[in-house]
Amino acid sequence: MSQPSDKALVPFVSVDNMMRLVHHIGIEQVLIDLATYVEDDFRRWELFDKTPRVASHSEVGVIELMPTSDGEAYGFKYVNGHPKNTSEGLQTVTAFGLLANVYTGYPVLLTEMTILTALRTAATSAMAAKYLAPKGSDTMAMIGNGAQSEFQSLAMKAILGLKTVRLYDKDPAATAKCAANLAGTGLNVVSCATPQEAIEGAQILTTCTADKQYATILSDNMVGAGVHINAIGGDCPGKTELAKGILERSDVFVEFPPQTRVEGEIQQMDEDFAVTELWQVISGQTEGRKDPRQITLFDSVGFAIEDFSALRYIRDKVSETPFKEDLDMLADPDDPRDLFGMLQRAKA
Amino acid sequence: MSQPSDKALVPFVSVDNMMRLVHHIGIEQVLIDLATYVEDDFRRWELFDKTPRVASHSEVGVIELMPTSDGEAYGFKYVNGHPKNTSEGLQTVTAFGLLANVYTGYPVLLTEMTILTALRTAATSAMAAKYLAPKGSDTMAMIGNGAQSEFQSLAMKAILGLKTVRLYDKDPAATAKCAANLAGTGLNVVSCATPQEAIEGAQILTTCTADKQYATILSDNMVGAGVHINAIGGDCPGKTELAKGILERSDVFVEFPPQTRVEGEIQQMDEDFAVTELWQVISGQTEGRKDPRQITLFDSVGFAIEDFSALRYIRDKVSETPFKEDLDMLADPDDPRDLFGMLQRAKA
Repeated sequence: MSQPSDKALVPFVSVDNMMRLVHHIGIEQVLIDLATYVEDDFRRWELFDKTPRVASHSEVGVIELMPTSDGEAYGFKYVNGHPKNTSEGLQTVTAFGLLANVYTGYPVLLTEMTILTALRTAATSAMAAKYLAPKGSDTMAMIGNGAQSEFQSLAMKAILGLKTVRLYDKDPAATAKCAANLAGTGLNVVSCATPQEAIEGAQILTTCTADKQYATILSDNMVGAGVHINAIGGDCPGKTELAKGILERSDVFVEFPPQTRVEGEIQQMDEDFAVTELWQVISGQTEGRKDPRQITLFDSVGFAIEDFSALRYIRDKVSETPFKEDLDMLADPDDPRDLFGMLQRAKA
Repeated sequence: MSQPSDKALVPFVSVDNMMRLVHHIGIEQVLIDLATYVEDDFRRWELFDKTPRVASHSEVGVIELMPTSDGEAYGFKYVNGHPKNTSEGLQTVTAFGLLANVYTGYPVLLTEMTILTALRTAATSAMAAKYLAPKGSDTMAMIGNGAQSEFQSLAMKAILGLKTVRLYDKDPAATAKCAANLAGTGLNVVSCATPQEAIEGAQILTTCTADKQYATILSDNMVGAGVHINAIGGDCPGKTELAKGILERSDVFVEFPPQTRVEGEIQQMDEDFAVTELWQVISGQTEGRKDPRQITLFDSVGFAIEDFSALRYIRDKVSETPFKEDLDMLADPDDPRDLFGMLQRAKA
């Protein structure tokens, strides 16, 4: 059988190769680069084809497709969310993604996106904090020390110059895991016994817990003036982390309002609750932080454009490395009308 | 680095392996099997999660995601349509698909679907003809001798007992290619110089041409009583093959009305033009052909459930064969909360 042509081969980045690529570049450099790619795409937000996720719900979880396009490239992510998986030794979330050429319709990259999503989420948080956090922020409270916590801490260090992270989780084993992983990264890591202790002296408060419920990780009286809240864990219907009173005192910044009003912290508020779209800050159409005493809140739920940025980045970086395999995924008969002949000749 | 666990590996069927699998089973047997899988899923049509395709249009083509679920498995197909590709030596249509477990959200199969779509389209046509074509149909006119023509002919032979296929294409080279490919399949193949000649004595008229326009491949006066029209090529907005008068004299059967009214032959008709959903015939809720002199018309545009059936079939068949590779596509840390630790340990 003849070899498939180059055009029929799709570069694939496995989990193993993603890890190799990340270490080849360096984790902090990857976070810095990703923040730049996300920032560039937020700046040209208006030209993207934007749709809410396409979700298929079942009693135990959800499977979603998140497509978008900038007119030149088309990307989508497949991602599931199954909170009960952990107790069965499986991941709550797994993801992969694909980038295609809009002009030909041919896929140009297939990649794991579980690790990549963790990286892009942290890079997006740090990019937003650059515009929203008080000047000179050097201390972050990290409340919730699960899978995203180290990525958040390292992104804030690499992109914002964070010096100290103060960890809290209701499960001390999670805090111990996070502290151990962050040892040697250059961050000053402080393990705390209560949320109150964790937020002492912090200009940035990051919440990222796993409970799927209306929880109050930060109560109204815990949040004083002049902080930036980076709310990551209020990211699906029925799941929030902040007291309503905090939202009322904050200036709230979001990715894509139609999605955030359903999935974010602001699902607690009326439909006309005022929010600012982050892309408008980044493109210079409106201000981010205006006042040192202001409370800014990034109500982040994750949006398809951030995955698109991450896919673009991996496509650009992986092309000149060995960290990929070629998948024979596209049928490529010499004569496009002769698919059957190609199949028949393969019998020999 | 430790090996990923079995759960993190996704079986992948390449184009090469798909061809090997098809020949291992036998093309006609694959068509028969696929028709059974599609028929089974049409019989339980009501329990599927059905949405129109999610399309991203550009000036030169379209990229679509076609998801569906039966509550146990979730499937989607990625497919592009770029008519201008042929002149650039590329495929007009390429496709791949994925099947996942709804209970865990984990993908269980990734496969090429360019060849598989050609097979499932033909199997669906023949399955519909079983219910709609006149009893004892043994001759088919195949108008349009492109990539789908041999698959259609062979499926009608394997599933319906077709004996003779009468070929016509405005390009005699396409007819010659189709006739050569069908030589030795046991079909009596007659190459014709005009559409009128092709339909002589045929009980089944299959139209499958490529022009993206409102074309009239069959005019009203060409179609007499007692035939079944299998209309494949009227499958996107602005692309039809049949004169309106034929539709007015026919009983029209469709897959999913909201999609067919936009993409099928019936885009020419008013929104309330009466159609029968094919699944209702297959599940016994309504009759297919009622009268030998009736004109039946299957206005086929292709629907996500047919791809789902095809994905189920490949999953079932490939599992016990060597015709697959395992892709390391899902990150699988020992402790789900320790994704960062897994990444960090990979550095060593």
